Amino acid sequence: MFESAELGHKLSKDEYKRIEPRLRADLLDAQFDVAANGKFPVVVLISGVRGAGKGETVNLLNEWMDPRHIYTHAFDTPSDEEIERPPMWRYWRTLPPKGHIGILFGSWYTSPIIERVFKRSKPADLSISLDAINRFERMLADEGALILKFWFHLSKDRQKKRLRALQSDPDTSWRINDRDWDFFKYYDRFYRISEETLRKTSNGWAPWIVVEGSDPQYRAVTVGKTLLEAMRRRLDTAKAAKAAKEAKATVIAAPKEAPLSRPVDNVHILHRMDLAAAVPKPKYEKKMDKLQRELAILTRHPKFAQKNVVLLFEGMDAAGKGGAIRRVTAALDARLYHTIPIAAPTDEERAQPYLWRFWRHLPRKGRFTIYDRSWYGRVLVERIEKFCSDADWMRAYTEINDFENQLAQNGAIVAKFWLQISKEEQYKRFKLRERTRFKRFKITEEDWRNRGKWDEYQIAAADMIERTSTDYAPWVLVAANDKYHARVKILEHIVTAIRQALV
Amino acid sequence: MFESAELGHKLSKDEYKRIEPRLRADLLDAQFDVAANGKFPVVVLISGVRGAGKGETVNLLNEWMDPRHIYTHAFDTPSDEEIERPPMWRYWRTLPPKGHIGILFGSWYTSPIIERVFKRSKPADLSISLDAINRFERMLADEGALILKFWFHLSKDRQKKRLRALQSDPDTSWRINDRDWDFFKYYDRFYRISEETLRKTSNGWAPWIVVEGSDPQYRAVTVGKTLLEAMRRRLDTAKAAKAAKEAKATVIAAPKEAPLSRPVDNVHILHRMDLAAAVPKPKYEKKMDKLQRELAILTRHPKFAQKNVVLLFEGMDAAGKGGAIRRVTAALDARLYHTIPIAAPTDEERAQPYLWRFWRHLPRKGRFTIYDRSWYGRVLVERIEKFCSDADWMRAYTEINDFENQLAQNGAIVAKFWLQISKEEQYKRFKLRERTRFKRFKITEEDWRNRGKWDEYQIAAADMIERTSTDYAPWVLVAANDKYHARVKILEHIVTAIRQALV
Repeated sequence: MFESAELGHKLSKDEYKRIEPRLRADLLDAQFDVAANGKFPVVVLISGVRGAGKGETVNLLNEWMDPRHIYTHAFDTPSDEEIERPPMWRYWRTLPPKGHIGILFGSWYTSPIIERVFKRSKPADLSISLDAINRFERMLADEGALILKFWFHLSKDRQKKRLRALQSDPDTSWRINDRDWDFFKYYDRFYRISEETLRKTSNGWAPWIVVEGSDPQYRAVTVGKTLLEAMRRRLDTAKAAKAAKEAKATVIAAPKEAPLSRPVDNVHILHRMDLAAAVPKPKYEKKMDKLQRELAILTRHPKFAQKNVVLLFEGMDAAGKGGAIRRVTAALDARLYHTIPIAAPTDEERAQPYLWRFWRHLPRKGRFTIYDRSWYGRVLVERIEKFCSDADWMRAYTEINDFENQLAQNGAIVAKFWLQISKEEQYKRFKLRERTRFKRFKITEEDWRNRGKWDEYQIAAADMIERTSTDYAPWVLVAANDKYHARVKILEHIVTAIRQALV
Repeated sequence: MFESAELGHKLSKDEYKRIEPRLRADLLDAQFDVAANGKFPVVVLISGVRGAGKGETVNLLNEWMDPRHIYTHAFDTPSDEEIERPPMWRYWRTLPPKGHIGILFGSWYTSPIIERVFKRSKPADLSISLDAINRFERMLADEGALILKFWFHLSKDRQKKRLRALQSDPDTSWRINDRDWDFFKYYDRFYRISEETLRKTSNGWAPWIVVEGSDPQYRAVTVGKTLLEAMRRRLDTAKAAKAAKEAKATVIAAPKEAPLSRPVDNVHILHRMDLAAAVPKPKYEKKMDKLQRELAILTRHPKFAQKNVVLLFEGMDAAGKGGAIRRVTAALDARLYHTIPIAAPTDEERAQPYLWRFWRHLPRKGRFTIYDRSWYGRVLVERIEKFCSDADWMRAYTEINDFENQLAQNGAIVAKFWLQISKEEQYKRFKLRERTRFKRFKITEEDWRNRGKWDEYQIAAADMIERTSTDYAPWVLVAANDKYHARVKILEHIVTAIRQALV
């Protein structure tokens, strides 16, 4: 979940100066409308790593907005009063009332994460805590709260630099103590456990928004804009519901989603890929030959009979998914694999939950299933073409993570490839397909239409990668402008993954 | 959760003959409408103890309905095919498509319960499994499924008799084997773990319906009627949504609640209480004196400083809650307790989630909070007067169980008293209040109005008791036609509970 927050997002001071006055005024307006509407509280959680600008951002929000309707609470060591009640009591007493914004600095997440990082709790304890949190937040949402959870992230390198900088500046050195460095020693563990926590508790009704914390302008505008959009969206829903009610139409309680955030500097993870990577043909042929041989041998390993492999390929049209898949299957005994091309669902599939059509093709032990496009259609094409509601694709992230977790728990090797090409490269390939007789069937009006929505697809793909890259099923980003490079990278990943699983 | 299913519910054969033809025809109609509407599948889970008539009921449903749109699946030992995929695969492959009814005989609940009963898994494992199940069922509901989960229950005594009867009848003895008796040895453990399972997985969108399994007519009509009402309700919602859509009103996805079931023989747990229980005055005075002294001494025990006590009183108007509370507080140091009378919420309270007003009064260690009426207002008065939506009070059961669990985990002694009087006794007390000058303030128009809804309140109370009686916070049912008896019973319970907690 943190990949997108290590891209070095930033906003120049000039841009910030341009954006800030308007954003500030809009936030103030929205805040007043929330207060006047008086129907829901806004609960903002601020969490994340040390030195990532949490405090500065909260100060700024307080400066920007009307202090009469905004409360900030910081949670440190529990008081005597608090210690004598159930742990959630301190949070209940500080919940913002309807019409108000409550900023909770540290929250119900702090203790479950810290306890687990320092191994004072077991994996199952964390799981149980997170489920209790999910039920609690679900209840808040059902009671009408708008919930936004910000996680301020810094890469290991950046955090180190930031702590050093704070320490060496006489104005800020008081803010850094031994405890900060003690924590830093556990960076990797903290990273892993936070990632699990965020993944398991990011829901449509209470999403996590990961904010890269290194640039003050970027983080302030990100938090401000996200908060603004969420409040506006909720106010609009309330208005629509009221209108419908006046028109005497049946109105049924809405699931209370907050929107996903957009990178305010328009930089996302796919932009940062080096698409120039290439492998010359002779080297490709040699490498491919070796990799295919290795793959073939691995599938004959006695232990392989106890493993199954799920591969899936996603990417823009003409990114080379089919070609890459054929290079994989060329190495496999035809009895060992199925390739499942995913197009529009059949009638039978439409009559079932959307994941059903993928469950039915799961491989037995010792087999491969290769999905050419996959369940991620839900958060790509279905999201963009509005084949399903916002609530539907937003909940899909969690459902997909759950699904892949079941695969991994069952011992499957799961590899997910995103093949990225540039918009120009796609154009070249489309044109080539139109000119090449035996490829003409591969290019349709629809492909051109989809191409028109390039940016939307890229944003959806970046959201998808961020929200479904897990330790048990990470996304592999493949620069695919050069097909040879893409295929080698894919084969290499598969061979390595299987080899590791057979140890 | 099983109290109501040990009342000896039954329907006479005559009544059954009267009800059956109509119910059967209605079910068939509903089934056709579901098939014609084609928008949602009906998922019916059949679980529970052995010998409680699960098989017979399923056979009957199949006989009653059109076999073309109903499928029954029984799950036994997983096949080779199934073992090689994630455990949920076998259930995914048998999900009914939209427009169809799928009856799952045994389900995703079987293995988590059995594993825990035989201690092959830990408490945390069960917790994690149940949370995964909740997410899975939530997803099914979000995808449109109507989910009904029936639990067939028999008291220990009845199960024993039933197994013996089946065994001694030559026609049925083949159905009983050693494994059944092995299971029976674990009855108590099975009871406890099933209770926990049902409590943690009963949601508005996938409720558990506990069916007493001893009487064939009763259980068949209960299942049939519940299924019928749930299908009808869903069909009506779909129709309303369609109409609203045609009127171009904003329609937002509905949470898909199935209704709570009503006992088809109109017998519920409160009917079965012996309200004649009485204590003569001299005995009462002696007993009360002793109990109050004991209570006073217990609160001075050094260990008591580490405990807190939450008492709550619910019951029909004039059931004697106030009087009982005063007999408790008479024994306590005034600095040790607060009595919180619950009336309409204040403005401040209305601006918060409904549980907030109760959280704020939780006692510190060494203290009592006594709630005169409580958070159960949500599932009593708010339900009946429609102060909140159906979805709201239905989710409240789980939220309340979660809340009380937090209290118990934190070391609180929780005691919940339901004071039951007869309708006649209430009338007498109302009249007496009207005649007695210093009691006149205690009787209002509203009390008479509430009395008009006596049956509704009784049904809501029975649902409440069934769904929120937990091992950590059980309901204490108090026969209160005789005030002396009620007070003694309450004091006795409190003294015992505190004494046990101080060991």
